Amino acid sequence: MKYFIGIDIGGMSLKTGVVDTGGRILQKETCRTNPDRPHGEIIKDIFELCVLAAKNAGLSQSNIAGVGIGSPGTVNPEKGLITFSGNLNFKSVKITEEFKKHWDIPVAIGNDADCAALGESQFGSGSGSKNSITITLGTGIGTGFIIDGKIFTGKDGEGAEGGHTAIKLGGQKCGCGQKGCWEAYASATALINQTKLAMRKNPESLLCAVAAELGKVSARVAFLAMKKGDKTAERVVKNYIRYIGAGIVNLVNIFRPETVIIGGGVSNEGAYLIDSLQKYVDKNSFGGALNTVPVIKQASLGNDSGIIGAAALIMKQTS
Amino acid sequence: MKYFIGIDIGGMSLKTGVVDTGGRILQKETCRTNPDRPHGEIIKDIFELCVLAAKNAGLSQSNIAGVGIGSPGTVNPEKGLITFSGNLNFKSVKITEEFKKHWDIPVAIGNDADCAALGESQFGSGSGSKNSITITLGTGIGTGFIIDGKIFTGKDGEGAEGGHTAIKLGGQKCGCGQKGCWEAYASATALINQTKLAMRKNPESLLCAVAAELGKVSARVAFLAMKKGDKTAERVVKNYIRYIGAGIVNLVNIFRPETVIIGGGVSNEGAYLIDSLQKYVDKNSFGGALNTVPVIKQASLGNDSGIIGAAALIMKQTS
Repeated sequence: MKYFIGIDIGGMSLKTGVVDTGGRILQKETCRTNPDRPHGEIIKDIFELCVLAAKNAGLSQSNIAGVGIGSPGTVNPEKGLITFSGNLNFKSVKITEEFKKHWDIPVAIGNDADCAALGESQFGSGSGSKNSITITLGTGIGTGFIIDGKIFTGKDGEGAEGGHTAIKLGGQKCGCGQKGCWEAYASATALINQTKLAMRKNPESLLCAVAAELGKVSARVAFLAMKKGDKTAERVVKNYIRYIGAGIVNLVNIFRPETVIIGGGVSNEGAYLIDSLQKYVDKNSFGGALNTVPVIKQASLGNDSGIIGAAALIMKQTS
Repeated sequence: MKYFIGIDIGGMSLKTGVVDTGGRILQKETCRTNPDRPHGEIIKDIFELCVLAAKNAGLSQSNIAGVGIGSPGTVNPEKGLITFSGNLNFKSVKITEEFKKHWDIPVAIGNDADCAALGESQFGSGSGSKNSITITLGTGIGTGFIIDGKIFTGKDGEGAEGGHTAIKLGGQKCGCGQKGCWEAYASATALINQTKLAMRKNPESLLCAVAAELGKVSARVAFLAMKKGDKTAERVVKNYIRYIGAGIVNLVNIFRPETVIIGGGVSNEGAYLIDSLQKYVDKNSFGGALNTVPVIKQASLGNDSGIIGAAALIMKQTS
């Protein structure tokens, strides 16, 4: 049996996991990132966390066949480079080369959202499909594209920004500076804004009571109030689902994948959300039922998708 | 020297050309399609046109290393199948198999817009770039994606419908039945509609005089009237260019290609159009100048792109 280590670098925490060829995590270790440090210190911590994970899994370093790294920001996998990562203060860091100074082992690097997509595609909800898109509905919208079993990112890892495609040109302002991006309509943040607007316009709606109970207006408020029979909440949710659906249809018409995987906090709404999106895509994608409509699924690896995906990255390169 | 034959099947005419490995056409032959006939008759005509082209190029059939076919509609290249083509009355036609009954030679098949994209990518304006998008602005909007030198169409050739991605959800009605598609804003047909609307609202504008001179409202009217200094025409053109640009930015943010090639009738507006689009994409694509912005170019192969691209298809498969 071969073993790999997947590394998920985040602005808050560093995570490493020993992963087998079936995508199962044997052992996980984690520590704080403290991102303001020089990058050399962070890379040394990552290395030490890898050694610890191997040891606690009952393995020696020689049992590990390779290491995969998932990083936020723009990553150039061919050059082993983190070009830019706001969360990390990393600029043009040759992470592959620097990691190998500590441990001379095959190392692969990818963007964290792309690694998550690869993880879901290989060992999660996309398992068995060669072409899948993983959409993460969180603060923003992340999109990871798997084509023919491989991560697709466009030139120098600068593409795959599906969240920043206009679905309503000139519409809602987006964090990227443009107006009308999908992210500005269908992220969790957008749902929160849509919920707040509905609360102001309909102070009598259950939205307000539910938000008061939760102590804040979260992305869950509209879904919870709808389940209690509130009509305003139902309108907010249906409209929001239409926004998510419209962006999915755009991607389906271009990529025509076999599977579309929905992750991120909003995906916890589960069957109701997934079924509604499936209906929308069935009805609205180009050619309708004449063409092959992809299956919409909820992501299944949760927070481990980054570790498992990073491990999958190096598995592919060393197989 | 190896020679190939490229075949461009159209609803009006069948075109074949003998093409060398440099993408040059040595000899072209053409005949009417008469698309209402049984498909067997059309395929026999295509074969005979190939033989004629080879003969008139001074070659024997044994000098031809392979045949590439570009067809409108949905094509499944792996199965050698034309799934559906409205223009041709073809349904589930095993064209590779049927062609080989006449001539047992390597045969490749692709969608005609994809072949044109491959032709431009290999031997036209995209020459030298591994990743390019060819956008055809005509009656509709065709999009052909070349990733790593190969045509990308999504599962079973059913993707690559960039014209049918919403840029204004719920907006202008599109021929596909949806509202707000890029095609409904940025095709030549859309420009004609936008010109007509401006003429009705501004009967004093030069648009009306130019249209009267041409005898119709074509896609050229707005560009011509703008060049004569008409302000209404300038507004129409600038708005139209923004619509084209917005769709290009969406594709750039996802694919981040090296080159974007503009073809179709509208592309004859040349430098003014191309330069304006370049400025739009430079300014509005994700990450702006921090990322690699693709070069926008006018298509260079004209009506021969289909023949040359179909030949390029089989060159790739036999090399």
